[in-house]
Amino acid sequence: MAGTFVIAQGGGPTAVINRTLAGAVAEIRKQHPGARILGARHGVRGIRDGNYVDFADVSSERLGLIAATPSAALGSTRDKPDAAYCEVVLKGLQALGADAFIYIGGNDTAGTQQILADAAGGKIAFVHAPKTIDNDLVENDHTPGFISAGEFVAGAFLSVDLDFRALPGIYVGIVMGRHAGFLTAAAAAWRDEEGDGPHLLYVPERPFSVPRFIDDVRATLGRHGRCIVAVSEGVTSEDGRSLVESLVPEDRLERDAHGNVKLSGGDLGLAFEHALRDGLPGTRARVDTLGYMPRGNIATINPTDAQEAFDAGAFAADAATRGSGSVALRHEGGKTVPRLVPLGNVAGKTRHMPENFMKPDVNDISSAGMAYLERLIPRKYKVGRPFV
Amino acid sequence: MAGTFVIAQGGGPTAVINRTLAGAVAEIRKQHPGARILGARHGVRGIRDGNYVDFADVSSERLGLIAATPSAALGSTRDKPDAAYCEVVLKGLQALGADAFIYIGGNDTAGTQQILADAAGGKIAFVHAPKTIDNDLVENDHTPGFISAGEFVAGAFLSVDLDFRALPGIYVGIVMGRHAGFLTAAAAAWRDEEGDGPHLLYVPERPFSVPRFIDDVRATLGRHGRCIVAVSEGVTSEDGRSLVESLVPEDRLERDAHGNVKLSGGDLGLAFEHALRDGLPGTRARVDTLGYMPRGNIATINPTDAQEAFDAGAFAADAATRGSGSVALRHEGGKTVPRLVPLGNVAGKTRHMPENFMKPDVNDISSAGMAYLERLIPRKYKVGRPFV
Repeated sequence: MAGTFVIAQGGGPTAVINRTLAGAVAEIRKQHPGARILGARHGVRGIRDGNYVDFADVSSERLGLIAATPSAALGSTRDKPDAAYCEVVLKGLQALGADAFIYIGGNDTAGTQQILADAAGGKIAFVHAPKTIDNDLVENDHTPGFISAGEFVAGAFLSVDLDFRALPGIYVGIVMGRHAGFLTAAAAAWRDEEGDGPHLLYVPERPFSVPRFIDDVRATLGRHGRCIVAVSEGVTSEDGRSLVESLVPEDRLERDAHGNVKLSGGDLGLAFEHALRDGLPGTRARVDTLGYMPRGNIATINPTDAQEAFDAGAFAADAATRGSGSVALRHEGGKTVPRLVPLGNVAGKTRHMPENFMKPDVNDISSAGMAYLERLIPRKYKVGRPFV
Repeated sequence: MAGTFVIAQGGGPTAVINRTLAGAVAEIRKQHPGARILGARHGVRGIRDGNYVDFADVSSERLGLIAATPSAALGSTRDKPDAAYCEVVLKGLQALGADAFIYIGGNDTAGTQQILADAAGGKIAFVHAPKTIDNDLVENDHTPGFISAGEFVAGAFLSVDLDFRALPGIYVGIVMGRHAGFLTAAAAAWRDEEGDGPHLLYVPERPFSVPRFIDDVRATLGRHGRCIVAVSEGVTSEDGRSLVESLVPEDRLERDAHGNVKLSGGDLGLAFEHALRDGLPGTRARVDTLGYMPRGNIATINPTDAQEAFDAGAFAADAATRGSGSVALRHEGGKTVPRLVPLGNVAGKTRHMPENFMKPDVNDISSAGMAYLERLIPRKYKVGRPFV
């Protein structure tokens, strides 16, 4: 197959999604020197609109620079195409004479590939290459983008814990993660000794209760004189509503095109500030919204993550010569190994943090959770123990 | 002088304030091998309470590790001692037989040293060593801690700008800085080409107007399809009130012990979210509170900053053998040089960003401001230009 390859990027950008793009392009150039490689701008939207980058015009040098740059160089999209939209996309690919479409993204992206693969009837290979800082793709041990984002979060909470040793109080950092708590859990990855923060972690997998939260913080203050909290933007109350939905009046809630409530930002931060002010009046408390800081931060691109992302792209390009599927990163024999799995296994599914990653009775990571985090996000800095 | 040296750290911690501590201890050990070196825990509070670390028990190896660790290893304090408090502190120092007190901190710390020096009448040397991420000490070209925090902010906004090229919208990042806009200005340090974000910068030195802000954002969206905004938590309206004070009802305002309104956090973030929702309805907008992320982040400790902080500590220890004063970092002959200036020159004063660092008619950094930022925070990463 010399042919035509189309590549696109979907969903939230990461620090290493461009490595996957570069890996795919490099592999196609190696295996199929005459092939045409087109990058669709802003995901399937670029195919719908016929908006392409021709990689014939992109030197290896520029590709190398782009690989080292965070975010999605082709642009991204939040479009979740329905059957009608997919038909337009499919026609666009057919008009190009495309032999394969490699789409780098999360579970929605895998879902799009499945719809397209089903409609195309085997004439074009549809390969999904994984990326997400949320680490919430089933079939994967972990996903490209997670380690770098996790390293940012681990370093941020290590640093804030040191700050709050010097000037005690309560700190709450709100971390991205609608359904899966992996990224929030990463806040604990670089704890070293008993008593190091973050002391409390709240993830979407476990019901959140404000009274329990206040009790947890009060107890931590009693033990350590400070309390560092990492909380997922997607924490939900017992009745299944997000914390924002529980605490903010319906007419002030913001929803996206899919009806999802906007989770991060001022409302959630303010909800925590008010809960602490009411529950623990007079105690210094600060709430930060980490928001976009961890997602594609240029200061915390992890080399392992970058290499795995590149390899996933190369593997996707190789797999595309044989048929459709989703690239999944497995942990086998102590190594990360890419495998091709059916698109339907991944499409639209969410991987949650395993139940045993949290301690049963305390809002903290278990030893099983810590072992996973330490394997993926090994400690990067040696820290001098402060005198306080 | 073999004697007794007391060292403490005050105010908000930085990524390199422990370098200054290590520099002072190392210099005293070098110059006065028999001297006693005591670290007061939590600033002057430790002297008041007789709570000390004896550095005789701290190995050079541990000191080296602590030097490389962010935050204040001795603990810090927000106490601004009045004359009565200072009398207790002075008695504590006299009871120790202290020959010198080196206090590392900002302009409040310099103020404490001045009160103590005036009361002691020349028998003890009171030296102030500078630190602040706000970069707001007069007599200084820049202050230890600023470069590292600035590097975090520069990298964060470079990264977010790339993110919002991929998924367009409005981004507002709220940056620490009550009276001085230097750290917010650092968001622009790593812009490369025309059109790179952040596109708008709002600093406390220039009156903030919500209608003007909305107009600015609308115009930027029209030009670039996205709008990245860096804003100081301390921006104030034309009438001199902070934005939080203008937008939040008085009974919901939080004040600290000094009556200062709490600036960062949910209220300010929410104020921006609502202003954008009302002024530019339907446009994707995200607001993050960077808060503590830049202050002592372990991932962005700048080597120049670290060295200058160490040197400032060593210089302070050397100066202490001759008398009282404040260490100021000057820019002379293309180099950063520490000089000793009178405490009264620095105490309680705030250095603002020079007027000409901002463009006169646009909320953006001028070429003079960019020259300053590029000298202090040189570009660290080479970025591949995206295709969108």
